[in-house]
Amino acid sequence: MTILDRIEGPRDLDALSADECAMLAAEIREFLISEVAKTGGHLGPNLGVVELTIALHRVFDSPRDPIVFDTGHQSYVHKLLTGRKDFSMLRQRGGLAGYPQRAESEHDIVESSHASSSLSWADGISRAFNRTGQPDRHVVAVVGDGALTGGMTWEALNNITDDNDRNLVIVVNDNGRSYAPTIGGMARFLNGVRSKGTYRDLQEGSEKLFSRLGHPGRTIYRGARGALHGFLSRASNNDHLYSNLDIKYLGPVDGHDLPALQEVLQQAKDYGRPTLVHVITEKGRGYAPAENDIADQFHSVGQIDPESGEPISNGVGKSWTSIFRERIVELADENDRLVAITAAMLAPTGLDLLAERHPRRVYDVGIAEQHAVTTAAGLAYGGLHPVVAIYATFMNRAFDQLLLDVALHRAGVTFVLDRAGITGPDGPSHNGVWDLATLQIVPGIRIAAPRDEATLRELLAEATAVEDGPTVIRYPKGPAGEALPALRRTADGVDVLREDAATDGTREADVLFVTVGPMSRIALDAAALLEERGITSTVVDPRWVVPVAESVIDLARGHRLLISIEDGIRVGGVGTRIRQALRDAGVDTAVSELGTPDEFPEHASRSQLLADAGLTAEQIAADVAEQVQGTRIPIARPAGESGPQTGPQLAAAAEPRESDERSADHPAA
Amino acid sequence: MTILDRIEGPRDLDALSADECAMLAAEIREFLISEVAKTGGHLGPNLGVVELTIALHRVFDSPRDPIVFDTGHQSYVHKLLTGRKDFSMLRQRGGLAGYPQRAESEHDIVESSHASSSLSWADGISRAFNRTGQPDRHVVAVVGDGALTGGMTWEALNNITDDNDRNLVIVVNDNGRSYAPTIGGMARFLNGVRSKGTYRDLQEGSEKLFSRLGHPGRTIYRGARGALHGFLSRASNNDHLYSNLDIKYLGPVDGHDLPALQEVLQQAKDYGRPTLVHVITEKGRGYAPAENDIADQFHSVGQIDPESGEPISNGVGKSWTSIFRERIVELADENDRLVAITAAMLAPTGLDLLAERHPRRVYDVGIAEQHAVTTAAGLAYGGLHPVVAIYATFMNRAFDQLLLDVALHRAGVTFVLDRAGITGPDGPSHNGVWDLATLQIVPGIRIAAPRDEATLRELLAEATAVEDGPTVIRYPKGPAGEALPALRRTADGVDVLREDAATDGTREADVLFVTVGPMSRIALDAAALLEERGITSTVVDPRWVVPVAESVIDLARGHRLLISIEDGIRVGGVGTRIRQALRDAGVDTAVSELGTPDEFPEHASRSQLLADAGLTAEQIAADVAEQVQGTRIPIARPAGESGPQTGPQLAAAAEPRESDERSADHPAA
Repeated sequence: MTILDRIEGPRDLDALSADECAMLAAEIREFLISEVAKTGGHLGPNLGVVELTIALHRVFDSPRDPIVFDTGHQSYVHKLLTGRKDFSMLRQRGGLAGYPQRAESEHDIVESSHASSSLSWADGISRAFNRTGQPDRHVVAVVGDGALTGGMTWEALNNITDDNDRNLVIVVNDNGRSYAPTIGGMARFLNGVRSKGTYRDLQEGSEKLFSRLGHPGRTIYRGARGALHGFLSRASNNDHLYSNLDIKYLGPVDGHDLPALQEVLQQAKDYGRPTLVHVITEKGRGYAPAENDIADQFHSVGQIDPESGEPISNGVGKSWTSIFRERIVELADENDRLVAITAAMLAPTGLDLLAERHPRRVYDVGIAEQHAVTTAAGLAYGGLHPVVAIYATFMNRAFDQLLLDVALHRAGVTFVLDRAGITGPDGPSHNGVWDLATLQIVPGIRIAAPRDEATLRELLAEATAVEDGPTVIRYPKGPAGEALPALRRTADGVDVLREDAATDGTREADVLFVTVGPMSRIALDAAALLEERGITSTVVDPRWVVPVAESVIDLARGHRLLISIEDGIRVGGVGTRIRQALRDAGVDTAVSELGTPDEFPEHASRSQLLADAGLTAEQIAADVAEQVQGTRIPIARPAGESGPQTGPQLAAAAEPRESDERSADHPAA
Repeated sequence: MTILDRIEGPRDLDALSADECAMLAAEIREFLISEVAKTGGHLGPNLGVVELTIALHRVFDSPRDPIVFDTGHQSYVHKLLTGRKDFSMLRQRGGLAGYPQRAESEHDIVESSHASSSLSWADGISRAFNRTGQPDRHVVAVVGDGALTGGMTWEALNNITDDNDRNLVIVVNDNGRSYAPTIGGMARFLNGVRSKGTYRDLQEGSEKLFSRLGHPGRTIYRGARGALHGFLSRASNNDHLYSNLDIKYLGPVDGHDLPALQEVLQQAKDYGRPTLVHVITEKGRGYAPAENDIADQFHSVGQIDPESGEPISNGVGKSWTSIFRERIVELADENDRLVAITAAMLAPTGLDLLAERHPRRVYDVGIAEQHAVTTAAGLAYGGLHPVVAIYATFMNRAFDQLLLDVALHRAGVTFVLDRAGITGPDGPSHNGVWDLATLQIVPGIRIAAPRDEATLRELLAEATAVEDGPTVIRYPKGPAGEALPALRRTADGVDVLREDAATDGTREADVLFVTVGPMSRIALDAAALLEERGITSTVVDPRWVVPVAESVIDLARGHRLLISIEDGIRVGGVGTRIRQALRDAGVDTAVSELGTPDEFPEHASRSQLLADAGLTAEQIAADVAEQVQGTRIPIARPAGESGPQTGPQLAAAAEPRESDERSADHPAA
């Protein structure tokens, strides 16, 4: 029986000796490597916090003392120590979530994966504990150094330091990188601390200056220019990050030295005031393939060979990201005014190639979406055309900046939203299902959705040529799938993909499908199924879904039913806009807007979630047939088109593959 | 001829002597007091920046050197110095905007009024100048100390200090308050600098330590613990705000000492690297009524008597804000778990009375909307019920936090959105027309809109009793207007305000109006006009507009036309949701969604903007009559209801009055 087998909850850690703790850490690493190799997941970040998580659960009493993980992808060890050891279905429907989830455990507090929020959570929780007569409960926030580049942490620290009468511990898990090395003046400061004599010495084991309990391993290391008592006595210290904000600072401490960690956390706990503990960890620690991976230390992986760390190929096609990655370089080569911005996700968004080629033309602003968007407005004012490459889910952080800094000023800025629509295994807070509904209400905005590689390539060129307002290109996670050529393109740029009725314009089909990006494929498959029932369809991909193209309205005029399909929420979605445009034009074609439901998608595969939402060709065909029959629309069967079709290909391109998983999130550990 | 008369542009300032500059400053103050007294506007902030603005335009060469005002309500002096002297129609249609506006002048850069964005703008502009071969152009950001509590400034500084090779000057206009005194650890730091020996001494004129040019007035004051050369040589200095971020710091300097200001700005300009200039100003400077106004120094005023500063009463009714102000105290007295949060707008949102009564139960988090919302989620986790009182326009800053921190976690948090819908004179970036469209897509949210005092009072009680997800109450600017009693309330809480058809349920009217809050009044007036034409109406106020009440769907079933009216954008608005709910229920009643257009409202009165959007009783009645006739709906005239009605009262309650103007914005100077 391993030690890990004996751990059913955090209090089972109390009886372990130091040696047993070290063995437990080794067992956990082995477990993580073998299990995550099978399912994919956030391997590197969790290998980096094994000792830290053990120490946290030995020193604090979760859930009485809530532990809030900023970007909870670093919570695997926490899950193991709180009784969740079946990782076989990690991030799959019915299995463990990849992030904390309250439904799984009372030890889980914050489910969201968006960075920089944990200090605000901790601020609120600790204030509430004080007000509700529980001032002895401690709140711990575990936050990555990368997340500190986000403005929310500044807002929170400004408040935390305004009220010192509470038990609040901030653990900065400093691995010197979020996904990539952390940027900015703040990072330079942290680098300074890390590289200075004291921490170097600490790693060499030669300068263990202080031990409250006399245990040689329980060492608190002095800051770069002051001894520990300097911190504790509130003396000045130029080297800690928020010196002006008057918060206790302990560290830096070696994040893989368990006794030292426990010592410093115990001190922080005993302090009775907000305290910041600076912990230096190594992402991917203890797993050679990760440690040797300079780029991202296996931040997030798909299925891998546990020995070599090599991805297990499943032969998928070219991803949307990789198409963007190549195309943006071509466009930048042609247009000297084109620059690009990423919020700490250079490789995941596909901007790494451009940064290699034109290092001065890519700005990594840190995990700082608000700044990313507003600085883009400034760049546009100054004569450039910025491309902000960002995951759709993180665009929610900068709605106000898009609205007022970019759109109000008609700044020519292109937003490229990766992971739009349903993403799947990462859970609710990674899904990009809100982008169309939020972005379409921005006055003057133009939103495009490519359906395949060719349309992404051309849309990117079209978008970056627009100089009088924001453009958006949004595409999902995963491979772009096969090409979907158009039969014809209307004068205003709408691609007609299928036309069952006579192409001479004398007669229209029953149903007009208007699709958003890769939903075209589902519509084509549904149209094939409908044809078998004698219902005729037209399938169009407007490419630019906002504003609504005139030719979509013209086409709708002759159809009895318009079905819009978007992989975003149906409430407030672009379907509602299409219907308004029809009504404004006096077209009374019935409209059904299809999209995802008004709820948070749970972790599952993208195809499962699409099926849940009824966004499969079969479901759509069945519903349409019922509507057409129910409203007694005469079923028109075009002459010469009664032959059987090949079976529908169910949303093949919409299915994500985990080989693309390594860039699955906004990594801030 | 005054000196001001001679200034047609910034370069006309060059020839002025020091004495003439001082006279100009006096003339500008006189002008501002007399002119703003007539129109209302941001008096206090502009009186505080007279010398600073003159100095900026003497030292820098606008527009070649762009000057970006953070929250541009402090731009009146800038307007005067750039040739805009007709303030007679300030903030009225056809007159000068209350904020910078590019259409007015090439000297205006950023039009938005939302705080904390200027550093990001400046970062982008200066980077673009470097890339486009114009590295000698300087960019100046003028930012209030209050705005520094916003996380965007941290994000921007982290980036600005990452690239020192550019001409970027940040002027911190530190008046120690945004609307109210600035909060937080950062403010405490600034207070420390302000109150320390050096700045006190400076005010007494006894310690003028350094003058580069030998001019006795051109004095740069050393920092609290280091002489100027300490700053310039990048030596350590514990007392400046962003010491860790490695940005040049000059100051503090007396913001009303014009020669000193010019000196320090010239030094910053000459430096060739990002520089922060700390300027101490007094809001309301030179106008006794403002200087003596402890609360807000006449941050924003309506029409006032220029001598006394007393508001000129126009006898309007009780404002929405004041109803909330009283009601929240009653509810807090009843419910010990109720706490409230404001983002630096205690009095403008009406939380000041609660703060007086229960000072420990109101948290002012600074201009930090993201933190405000997430800390509320933390407070709810800790067992409290937070009420976040905020202007609708600023809610756009925290959409992601509402979605993921509050709604995903089903936190019981009530959002009270003041200034929802069209606000009017403050211009595009103050309008709250996006709130319904953005908030309604948050899963599980419940959104209410009161139509009068009684409904606001009851809705606030209902909302704060909800513990399993976010609730929103939104109301516009201005007076609540007369009571609009309901004829009856349905079992699920929908108020029926008018029923032309028989109340025995045997027959329905032609048109069903479904209204959002105060739009009820317009609907009632429209219904009266329609009655004159023999068209019968039902008017319902759902009170809770999201989710859509069952009884609204039931009522719609028997009507031929449903008209939804919201004072928010029509695209993606709640009208689209009502229609989807009808369709889901198989109800085929035609739906027209009325709302504001998909564009940025320009500054004008609320009634002008509502009329532009067709949201008047006459326009709606005319459109409905045409639809009913055009679709050949038989015009049913109920027996005994043919008498003439009194004329419609055009959206009387929807008209804002300027007496409520003093709390018109998010004040960050």
